[in-house]
Amino acid sequence: MIQAKSFAAFAADKPLAPFSFERRAPRPDDVAIEILYCGVCHSDLHFARNDWGMSQYPVVPGHEIVGRVTGVGEKVSRFKAGDLVGVGCMVDSCRSCAACNDGVEQYCLEGFTMTYGGPDRVDGTLTQGGYSDSIVVSEHFVLKMPDGIDLASAAPILCAGITTYSPLKHYGVKSGHKLGVIGMGGLGHMGVKLAKALGAEVTVFTRSNAKVEEAKRNGADHVVVSSDPAQMDAVAASFDFMLDTVPVQHDLNPYLNALKYDGTHILVGLLEPIEPAIEAFNLVFKRRVVAGSLIGGIAETQELLDLCAEQGITCDVEMLDINDINQGFERMEKGDVRYRFVIDMATLKGDAA
Amino acid sequence: MIQAKSFAAFAADKPLAPFSFERRAPRPDDVAIEILYCGVCHSDLHFARNDWGMSQYPVVPGHEIVGRVTGVGEKVSRFKAGDLVGVGCMVDSCRSCAACNDGVEQYCLEGFTMTYGGPDRVDGTLTQGGYSDSIVVSEHFVLKMPDGIDLASAAPILCAGITTYSPLKHYGVKSGHKLGVIGMGGLGHMGVKLAKALGAEVTVFTRSNAKVEEAKRNGADHVVVSSDPAQMDAVAASFDFMLDTVPVQHDLNPYLNALKYDGTHILVGLLEPIEPAIEAFNLVFKRRVVAGSLIGGIAETQELLDLCAEQGITCDVEMLDINDINQGFERMEKGDVRYRFVIDMATLKGDAA
Repeated sequence: MIQAKSFAAFAADKPLAPFSFERRAPRPDDVAIEILYCGVCHSDLHFARNDWGMSQYPVVPGHEIVGRVTGVGEKVSRFKAGDLVGVGCMVDSCRSCAACNDGVEQYCLEGFTMTYGGPDRVDGTLTQGGYSDSIVVSEHFVLKMPDGIDLASAAPILCAGITTYSPLKHYGVKSGHKLGVIGMGGLGHMGVKLAKALGAEVTVFTRSNAKVEEAKRNGADHVVVSSDPAQMDAVAASFDFMLDTVPVQHDLNPYLNALKYDGTHILVGLLEPIEPAIEAFNLVFKRRVVAGSLIGGIAETQELLDLCAEQGITCDVEMLDINDINQGFERMEKGDVRYRFVIDMATLKGDAA
Repeated sequence: MIQAKSFAAFAADKPLAPFSFERRAPRPDDVAIEILYCGVCHSDLHFARNDWGMSQYPVVPGHEIVGRVTGVGEKVSRFKAGDLVGVGCMVDSCRSCAACNDGVEQYCLEGFTMTYGGPDRVDGTLTQGGYSDSIVVSEHFVLKMPDGIDLASAAPILCAGITTYSPLKHYGVKSGHKLGVIGMGGLGHMGVKLAKALGAEVTVFTRSNAKVEEAKRNGADHVVVSSDPAQMDAVAASFDFMLDTVPVQHDLNPYLNALKYDGTHILVGLLEPIEPAIEAFNLVFKRRVVAGSLIGGIAETQELLDLCAEQGITCDVEMLDINDINQGFERMEKGDVRYRFVIDMATLKGDAA
């Protein structure tokens, strides 16, 4: 067993607090990792507060994990102590269904094992995430951090990055395509950078004039203030893709109207009912598509890490002391972070119970 | 000028009645056609009653037209007097935009010219449809009726047929695919036959037990009674495609749940707001897609006619005397037709004003 320090949620209405627990001793295919950095995703907040009605407590959030290997099981071949590695949203899957065989473990027919808050496939214990000084993960779900990548700012690539990259790859976004990014948060700003890296002409849609310069600084070729009907009219029927990162209900119809015929609107942030209702004629009359996409597969995540290292693509992060995690959650709720908090796990030393 | 007899709608709340008017003399690229048969589409009823708020009166409905060429303009090269031909939902488009160049004139960036109720691109007069003894149409929008095809039962191929065939081709439906057809009307029963012709394993979803045998008679491999939760649960995550022909609001979520990951739900009948709302998680968690599709291009329609002739695929029709068109509309509203009325235009002779 490995004694782990962490911060955990103990109830939906209580702040996160220090929590000490045991990680399993590595199984033959396991990699034991000392966590250096962990990104703070909106899902962490939803899970801590039981917004999705599936939380069991205590739960240690965190699925944008970067660390160093401290030990490996006897059957592990790709990693050794000292290697720099990453762990994202998944720590296991059935590994034998059509989806797993296709390298899209996130669509595992049996359901993938979440990095925190899900039952381990072997012993049924609840998985615990990255707001912790250690984690033990099966080799297949461990990513190699490429040489030269900035470790702290790479952490959010493991969720925010892959969530936007996977649909861009799936739909073949490339040079010559016009793509809109809706929303400029953790997902949106990565979507801009990655769509640019793939060669697309990128327009950011934002509700406020205040974010126009910010969007351009992040690499957007154009910015449309979506609350201005004249600006929306001016871009009617002009986009091949919309990458919609907005996590709250919003009207898709003005964006559908901005798609060309055969255009695709990709939802990556919304999990709620699509309201206001999509007007079916906006799909039928132009053969448009509304699609969803969830994180990305392991091989694709490795490909993305390598691409980011090669092209120097990083997530814009603000470092967070784990003792300030509750204030961090509060600031996230107000949208007051550019664009992702990353916990420096050095701040955990000596603080856990 | 060609003196035309017809039945027209004169107001939203009045029955169709005989109407005499002049068709234009053929322009150099025009084909003049004596109409033999015309299918009765739900759109005709909607247009006659101004359900879409765009009708101008009098309007002669009908866009599933089969007839014989009576004359051609000097530049027409593909047709001559005596040829058997068809005309569907479109009689013109800009012919130079990206969509027209791609052979999908139905998505013409300037908007295609509807067979009835739209302004002619040359002189601005309102087009008039196929509940008539003649029509004059530009060569590009005239289809060849292949040898041996049954003319009356082929008429609905020009709308109901191509509306279901076009998305099947666009999404590459083929042997090995499992496809659900939702709704068993004019569109649905053609969808079953055409998906079978393309090699798919076809399941019909119907709300009533009464249609189970009927669906199998039309070629369905399986039938699911969608009002039975146990039957719906039994097909969860098992389809590659849903071809949704239902023209009224209905809940898409149970059908989305029946799609595999990467499955596609294709709307061809609905033009209203999608309510109840689509649950975004039904798309995001399985990378599913909701798409729309509108009729089909001219080349694709010709391909379909040729396929139907070759494989002996016909639409199930009930012949209608044009003098009974108002009773026909009433029966269509009650779903009391298997599956399409086709007007025998011989019944028009001597009746028009």
